[in-house]
Amino acid sequence: MTDASLERIQQLQELMAQVDLQGIALNPGPDLSYFSGLSFHLMERPVLFILPRDGSPLIVLPELEERKIEGFPGGMRPFLYNEDSSTWANAFQSALSEARLLEGKLGVMPRQLRLLEFTYIQQAAPDLELESAQSLIANLRMSKDKNEIAWMSEAVRIAECALSAVLSALKPGVTEKEIASRLVGRLFLEGSDPALPFFPIVSFGENTANPHASPGQRELREGDLVLVDWGAGYKGYYSDITRVFAMGDIHPELEKVAQFVQQANRAGRAAVKPGALAKDVDRTVREVISGAGYGEFFIHRTGHGLGREAHEEPYISAYEDTELIPGMTFTIEPGIYLPNRGGVRIEDDVLVTEDGCQSLTGLPRELTQLLLEDDFH
Amino acid sequence: MTDASLERIQQLQELMAQVDLQGIALNPGPDLSYFSGLSFHLMERPVLFILPRDGSPLIVLPELEERKIEGFPGGMRPFLYNEDSSTWANAFQSALSEARLLEGKLGVMPRQLRLLEFTYIQQAAPDLELESAQSLIANLRMSKDKNEIAWMSEAVRIAECALSAVLSALKPGVTEKEIASRLVGRLFLEGSDPALPFFPIVSFGENTANPHASPGQRELREGDLVLVDWGAGYKGYYSDITRVFAMGDIHPELEKVAQFVQQANRAGRAAVKPGALAKDVDRTVREVISGAGYGEFFIHRTGHGLGREAHEEPYISAYEDTELIPGMTFTIEPGIYLPNRGGVRIEDDVLVTEDGCQSLTGLPRELTQLLLEDDFH
Repeated sequence: MTDASLERIQQLQELMAQVDLQGIALNPGPDLSYFSGLSFHLMERPVLFILPRDGSPLIVLPELEERKIEGFPGGMRPFLYNEDSSTWANAFQSALSEARLLEGKLGVMPRQLRLLEFTYIQQAAPDLELESAQSLIANLRMSKDKNEIAWMSEAVRIAECALSAVLSALKPGVTEKEIASRLVGRLFLEGSDPALPFFPIVSFGENTANPHASPGQRELREGDLVLVDWGAGYKGYYSDITRVFAMGDIHPELEKVAQFVQQANRAGRAAVKPGALAKDVDRTVREVISGAGYGEFFIHRTGHGLGREAHEEPYISAYEDTELIPGMTFTIEPGIYLPNRGGVRIEDDVLVTEDGCQSLTGLPRELTQLLLEDDFH
Repeated sequence: MTDASLERIQQLQELMAQVDLQGIALNPGPDLSYFSGLSFHLMERPVLFILPRDGSPLIVLPELEERKIEGFPGGMRPFLYNEDSSTWANAFQSALSEARLLEGKLGVMPRQLRLLEFTYIQQAAPDLELESAQSLIANLRMSKDKNEIAWMSEAVRIAECALSAVLSALKPGVTEKEIASRLVGRLFLEGSDPALPFFPIVSFGENTANPHASPGQRELREGDLVLVDWGAGYKGYYSDITRVFAMGDIHPELEKVAQFVQQANRAGRAAVKPGALAKDVDRTVREVISGAGYGEFFIHRTGHGLGREAHEEPYISAYEDTELIPGMTFTIEPGIYLPNRGGVRIEDDVLVTEDGCQSLTGLPRELTQLLLEDDFH
């Protein structure tokens, strides 16, 4: 991580010069981890990583956490405060002053920076102008390097192994929550990071019609569609997969729907290549589903970027002009949801390669028949 | 939840009048859930709940999520936007204008509000003055009602049952991560919410000296101290417990340390009563540990508030003048950490009652001997 950090910090400093930012300030979150290799919790105590355009980074942090930055290559100047919150403003003041960031433009991340840190920055440097560094940093983060791709592939492997180990528990009578609980325990046993991208969605029967269902006490019955949307974390990088299963014979229309979604997923992956626009991929997928007569039941975008965050750039929607380039990673996840009846989503994690698209996910995309207890007799 | 929401909203509106706030705006997080009974993820799309001093609440949200607010008692006026982010500013503008919040003072939560929502608010209402509503809302949230206490007690029960079910797996050779993974799966099977307060800390031997250790590949050996810090969630409320165990005979000094920490924990709970100050409780605990000669090794505060957040008001530290009142819930968690050797923390979740303190946690606080495989032969 640390070698990558130095390179990324250098890249960021070069970009800062181009867009005339005097520095960038990050609070705990995926961006801070990406550039520093460090991870802090977002807590009641503010932490601020400050990177001036020239020179080494500085960090404002509680003295209790000072050891975390030991050994950061090239050094990181700490500005510490203690439990007495009246000392906090002073730490911000000293750090920004030392970084010569009392005026000019400071880049910040609007989805991550809280009013807490923002206020300390403003008090310390009222003449400093804050500007969004969202697209600048998103552009860097979108293009994954070899290690990041390897870690995402490992997060996929962990997720796929965990699901496979849990499938045999899908029997009539088991609840959504039981399956989700076993799956989570298994994800960690298979090697997932403590932080999952999200708690798995496990939904049965009519509950599959809600794309954001929470696993509950609904018991699995013969004739149910089963939807599982889950992922793992590895070295801070996520996987995010959805597959559907049939408990015995399901309604023929839902079987057909599953085939259309599979076609849309395949068409989406085929449309992914360098130079294509995100919105083109979305349109291609949407056309397959509309062509099958289910356009109004595809109620979300085709996908979202995936990496250190479960949702990040690039977004694969009708409104996104982002041009795809090698190294980008995102989901392709068409879905058809028939209210009160059932829904199908098939979600893969894909990587833009030099000449097209590689799916990091390898589990079969067909509607898979689960074995009924009876099949053993 | 919803009846409580109406009452809490009314309380908040009365307090707003007293401190001359024209409204309060909340983005997704524990405060929004507390007042609305609704839960939204903090995502790339902004959501803002707006409560004017008079009248019903309004909410800015993506049209995809409109169904979530159906059935909110008394109604909640939605201001919707779609996937096209250029429409978002307009939704904020309309909502703040409809709420007559284009000037005056708007209360916000500095630890939760992001620059994203803040910027939309500022653009829509440049003359609106933003002010921290942190202590106003913290004061309401600190005093738990009967349901909240019942839910926290259930979160304690779930956590205690889950740990008890996993203890038998603590045998030489098992790794910290294996125990943590099993514990997490078990927490959900016992009925925990999908959201845990944090991933359990399971540390063995010398790793127990780090209060924030992450479970790793360290294998359990005879003579190890074992520390588990874990919690569950129930209806959005958390538990947070720490207990220590001995795998066979541990170093006599660590045994003594465990006794001192147990004494400090007991003294802390005894100091909790209405009228006492948070800092008095911290001092009482600290005196026991200093008296035993280990003052320099108690490197954190005595406790933190617990409820919808794993860390919330009141903080039990040397700097907190907060007066304890019935209904407050927080942790009492003294610890002694001997670098590279081992550490002991004993953490209870307590409730301030009319005449003292009730511990919601019931597991024994003694250093518990784990059975070696041999003990069965």
